[in-house]
Amino acid sequence: MKFWNSTLRSMDEYIPGEQPSNLDEYIKLNTNENPFPPSEKVMKAIIENVTPNLRRYPDSKASRVRAIFAEQNNISPENIFVGNGSDEIFTLIFRGFIEKTGLAAFPYPSYALYDTLAQGNGIKFKKIAMDKSLTVDMDKFLEEKYDMVIIANPNNPTGTYISTARIKHFLTNFKGLLVVDEAYIDFYGGSAIGLINEYDNIIVTRSFSKSYSLAGLRVGLAIANGDIIKGLLKIKDSYNVDALALAGAEAALLDTRSFEYNISMLRNNKEYLEERLSSMGFEIIPSRANFVFTKHPSIDSKMLYEKLKEEKILIRYFSGPIQSEYVRISIGTMMEIKKLCQAIASILEGV
Amino acid sequence: MKFWNSTLRSMDEYIPGEQPSNLDEYIKLNTNENPFPPSEKVMKAIIENVTPNLRRYPDSKASRVRAIFAEQNNISPENIFVGNGSDEIFTLIFRGFIEKTGLAAFPYPSYALYDTLAQGNGIKFKKIAMDKSLTVDMDKFLEEKYDMVIIANPNNPTGTYISTARIKHFLTNFKGLLVVDEAYIDFYGGSAIGLINEYDNIIVTRSFSKSYSLAGLRVGLAIANGDIIKGLLKIKDSYNVDALALAGAEAALLDTRSFEYNISMLRNNKEYLEERLSSMGFEIIPSRANFVFTKHPSIDSKMLYEKLKEEKILIRYFSGPIQSEYVRISIGTMMEIKKLCQAIASILEGV
Repeated sequence: MKFWNSTLRSMDEYIPGEQPSNLDEYIKLNTNENPFPPSEKVMKAIIENVTPNLRRYPDSKASRVRAIFAEQNNISPENIFVGNGSDEIFTLIFRGFIEKTGLAAFPYPSYALYDTLAQGNGIKFKKIAMDKSLTVDMDKFLEEKYDMVIIANPNNPTGTYISTARIKHFLTNFKGLLVVDEAYIDFYGGSAIGLINEYDNIIVTRSFSKSYSLAGLRVGLAIANGDIIKGLLKIKDSYNVDALALAGAEAALLDTRSFEYNISMLRNNKEYLEERLSSMGFEIIPSRANFVFTKHPSIDSKMLYEKLKEEKILIRYFSGPIQSEYVRISIGTMMEIKKLCQAIASILEGV
Repeated sequence: MKFWNSTLRSMDEYIPGEQPSNLDEYIKLNTNENPFPPSEKVMKAIIENVTPNLRRYPDSKASRVRAIFAEQNNISPENIFVGNGSDEIFTLIFRGFIEKTGLAAFPYPSYALYDTLAQGNGIKFKKIAMDKSLTVDMDKFLEEKYDMVIIANPNNPTGTYISTARIKHFLTNFKGLLVVDEAYIDFYGGSAIGLINEYDNIIVTRSFSKSYSLAGLRVGLAIANGDIIKGLLKIKDSYNVDALALAGAEAALLDTRSFEYNISMLRNNKEYLEERLSSMGFEIIPSRANFVFTKHPSIDSKMLYEKLKEEKILIRYFSGPIQSEYVRISIGTMMEIKKLCQAIASILEGV
């Protein structure tokens, strides 16, 4: 690894959820993909944009996506940035808004990519362990001088949620930059977007991968003070989001009816899964996302994950303290949930 | 700009070529976009991939694109990386393969994005001025200890080319990392890809934006030693290229017939433009790309650019030493070239 620099050498590799090549043989409830297809209008809009104009560079400012989101959320386009998935936005935040000598902090357990991206940009960080109730105690982020705090809200993998009032209270005492990753916010609402007009030190990020069923398209948003957005525009690659992803995102935002239907179906299936799991004796952490974080008193979580994998059902198991006690199960279609619950029932019978 | 870090504060903004919002009113010969549409098979392949599966994450390893390119070029998939345009690849190279204390070098004039990206990643660099013949003297990159040298080959904006033999000779004396940006290589051939088997310190990059008419799709490749590729895979965002871009790139590589036809049309139009410009008294730098770098003894280049813009024809003018003497004209369709030449003839009559 002769040409790797010290940053690349010292970083850990991020391991995304398994994507088996024989995907169609599996029920895949391990990466929080939405079980329902994207809206027909989105697919139509993308297809309509597959034209000779693909020879041209896309709109580097993503003007239409920003205008639509701004109008729908009663903010200005100058407060919105469009990224190649919210992953790219986190990378840009680490590159542009914290010094190499700075210190970041995230709760633990949370989205493991924050660790990887911080390492990949040479940023030091601390992980603040949650207590046994698996909620984030924001006060702990005030105990030391952190330049940046990132929270996922709802949190991944726990599904737990912090109220906007609580975040607002935190901001009144916090001098660094707070990043609120709202990849899962659409399922049950409660966004902190409104705080950007009041505080210049909050960046809210969004994703089209979950609630819009567009993980394959790679679109994410950052919503923040105009100076932050200017910085993101300055440091990003010129053409970071492709023309078809922009077309899809525009149509997705405009088709509010499909969006709401998708969300209501998802919530319906989540409630059904929670009921079934409860009735089988699972302990379920209250989730406001499209997944549940759960454990059963009579089966080890890693064993449950492995036995389900043998049945061609993928759920997510994370090693490490606290989280290894649980499994994370993404919400699937009703048929997938029923098959999962049958398989779990059989496994429980055997223990 | 309270939260901007020192890197973001000190970098210059990259100014891409003008993309007027009333695009259709212009003949646009300023950003080296291919004037011909992408292959029908590519458009069909993309449309076929607009399915409910867009709800799923794309293949994070881009396995099929790598397999196809590997087979066509008689190298291994382990030597190939797929990026969100070659722009992303340059960013990743700056992030992973040079220390913050390192020194990079590029020729001048060359692709201005290298400067921006180096600055945006806190990397110091020197620009080595070309002589009046506008060719790169590689020996100048041996006069100081550079950790990384980036050359565009053919060079942008000059169109000049360095032979593989010359690059090979350079590598026998150079201990740093050489990046050869082959965004324009397909038009006249002469790639340095073959050197990756012999030297572990060369990265060749490619783009689908020019020769494949897919600037709107954002796909680029890096070809290098397996250790370099492993590093790029480690430091990239998990899902950096979206599912439709991957589908388009696969189809583009496979449709060699359309590719060759596109290239031959482009060369034909380029030769025609060169003849017409010559006959009007222009001096033309020998170009192996889809643009020409040219100047006229009796009209200032900036004035020519401005007068053509009044006629709704966009060509590229760069300020700065040497290059401000010239304009860069991307090769258009035959109709666009004829209109351009008519407009130039009128302008020359007036001076």
